[in-house]
Amino acid sequence: VHFSDLDTPALLIDVDIMERNVCRLAEYCRQHSLQLRPHTKTHKIPELAQLQVGHGAAGITVAKVGEAEAMADAGLHDILIAYPLLGEKKLSRLAALARRAHITVAVDSLVTARPISETARREGVSIGVRAEFDTGFRRCGLPIDPSSIETVAAIRDLPALEWRGLQVYPGHIMHTASERNGLIDRENERLTRLVELMDAAGIDRSILSGGNTPAAYQAHRFVGVTEIRPGTYIFNDKNTVCAEAATYADCALTVLTRVVSRSVSGKAIVDAGSKTLSADLLLSGNRQGYGHVMDHEGVVVEDLSEEHGHLDLARAARQPRLGDLIRIIPNHVCTCINLHDRVYGLRNEQIVNEWAVAGRGKVQ
Amino acid sequence: VHFSDLDTPALLIDVDIMERNVCRLAEYCRQHSLQLRPHTKTHKIPELAQLQVGHGAAGITVAKVGEAEAMADAGLHDILIAYPLLGEKKLSRLAALARRAHITVAVDSLVTARPISETARREGVSIGVRAEFDTGFRRCGLPIDPSSIETVAAIRDLPALEWRGLQVYPGHIMHTASERNGLIDRENERLTRLVELMDAAGIDRSILSGGNTPAAYQAHRFVGVTEIRPGTYIFNDKNTVCAEAATYADCALTVLTRVVSRSVSGKAIVDAGSKTLSADLLLSGNRQGYGHVMDHEGVVVEDLSEEHGHLDLARAARQPRLGDLIRIIPNHVCTCINLHDRVYGLRNEQIVNEWAVAGRGKVQ
Repeated sequence: VHFSDLDTPALLIDVDIMERNVCRLAEYCRQHSLQLRPHTKTHKIPELAQLQVGHGAAGITVAKVGEAEAMADAGLHDILIAYPLLGEKKLSRLAALARRAHITVAVDSLVTARPISETARREGVSIGVRAEFDTGFRRCGLPIDPSSIETVAAIRDLPALEWRGLQVYPGHIMHTASERNGLIDRENERLTRLVELMDAAGIDRSILSGGNTPAAYQAHRFVGVTEIRPGTYIFNDKNTVCAEAATYADCALTVLTRVVSRSVSGKAIVDAGSKTLSADLLLSGNRQGYGHVMDHEGVVVEDLSEEHGHLDLARAARQPRLGDLIRIIPNHVCTCINLHDRVYGLRNEQIVNEWAVAGRGKVQ
Repeated sequence: VHFSDLDTPALLIDVDIMERNVCRLAEYCRQHSLQLRPHTKTHKIPELAQLQVGHGAAGITVAKVGEAEAMADAGLHDILIAYPLLGEKKLSRLAALARRAHITVAVDSLVTARPISETARREGVSIGVRAEFDTGFRRCGLPIDPSSIETVAAIRDLPALEWRGLQVYPGHIMHTASERNGLIDRENERLTRLVELMDAAGIDRSILSGGNTPAAYQAHRFVGVTEIRPGTYIFNDKNTVCAEAATYADCALTVLTRVVSRSVSGKAIVDAGSKTLSADLLLSGNRQGYGHVMDHEGVVVEDLSEEHGHLDLARAARQPRLGDLIRIIPNHVCTCINLHDRVYGLRNEQIVNEWAVAGRGKVQ
């Protein structure tokens, strides 16, 4: 089937580009002796997690217990839940998961860690634990400060939990390549401080996990980091391109849309709105618009309704016609895929695969 | 089950508030002899569409063929697809729908209308058709101009299509109540012109459909409008409140979340991010933040990651604690529900119902 025979909108994954992205980062990590634990929240597709593991990933990362269950159902074994889990229902599912897979959870407080330990002990399972520190993104994570040492040592010593080191998330390290250099210098000051604090307290930091997609190929420069958890790199997106961490030729996922109205002058309306592309803003570059329109120079996705993409044609090199197919690279590929039940694999313009997004909608 | 026993995040619908919203607008429409055809893209739940029809709605509106199928499967009969349908696959599904339900489609071009007519004729079904005009939102719709008359007359005369009048979408009529008054005056100049054009050309405009939620209770003021298609009014949301078209006490849907991290000073992180609330921006009021936090004066949802809501506590009247449940009224309820497979019905703090979002993810 040629992709143009698909109904629209539909998500297309260029399999060659995806495999190249997966191989390239795997090779970089091998060269620099870094563990790669890709964040599968980007695709939520077990078959693609298996592709990443097949190319040498040490395991996978997920954000939700439900995502871990979907991955374990498909045979993925080494799973990090990089999210603070709270509440009885989640913990009993966590214990069930730990019976059939190698599970690690990230925590940033004793209030979170203690019930996990109690559940593991009661259920007779072993669960790995990592302490998360904040290096400047200001989301989760203990402060890099002597006041945190007592908490981390107490987490490490909780019964039925296996200590699996430290985690940071450098979500603030994005923007352009030159801006990233300054951010990495400041990050290294914080990481150096973290390493010194842990060593002084005798806390094992032989695993120190960090890394996102914009800084993935700079990961060898981070002090003490032994593992990275990028997600977006498997596909890339307009955010990645505008952060100068990929080119549009490295973007594997596109949204296939159709022009459904040309009745308003200067505009073309396509059948992909915020319920297809997601309304996530562009976080780098000029921060304008909702995705990159392929092969249509000067056409801008200026606005989204729920089911309509509003294309501004004021600077269009050529005018799209009613019924034309248009492919859009989304601003943020992770939230885009999360809106879809299935995606199609594309090779040489032919559909060669179809994957269910098995981890979609697992909000708990 | 008390709602606090649910796992988080979860969507709660206060059934009393929802029923009050449904009854109140139904009563308003009866008083003003307006047809009410609610847009079910807001909830995508057939049982709630049936509630609306049970309270006198003349039929329902959907945006996608897949939504129409989900509604027809549940016995909804009179369905308007308010979206320009293009492509063979959609049209053969449309013909199948027309065999089991009373279907109308909105079109704004002959290029869209002709294949629908051909399909209807070939398949031996009758499909209703409406012509859409643009009154200023600049999305879909023919211009209100003599140049459009030939197109509309040709659409009306296509074989196997039944003429069901005109449609507009006043998506630009929002903002505050006082700003809306000026917008309604300008809208009425355009509607007057539309009515004059149609009457001069002898085109039946005994159905003229318009209406959105912010202007729902002003619908009697619109020239020539006989039917309205609001969606959000069943629940309302922060956009509706900031547009002064509802109060928070009228908001039926809340997102139940839990504080999962308090490790970063001045912040609380809850387990609802853009994959739970949607990243839709606030379009009215101060246009800041990602939803209204209930019962926590001064707490602001300042940012969203995919699975984290970032609450700023700088002006908090009291500090939420780790593990606390927090309820958030989303900016835009339609894109929020679309991220979820199920929602819970709440009455007096008890869960009294659970609905599957049967129309979720029907992108085609």
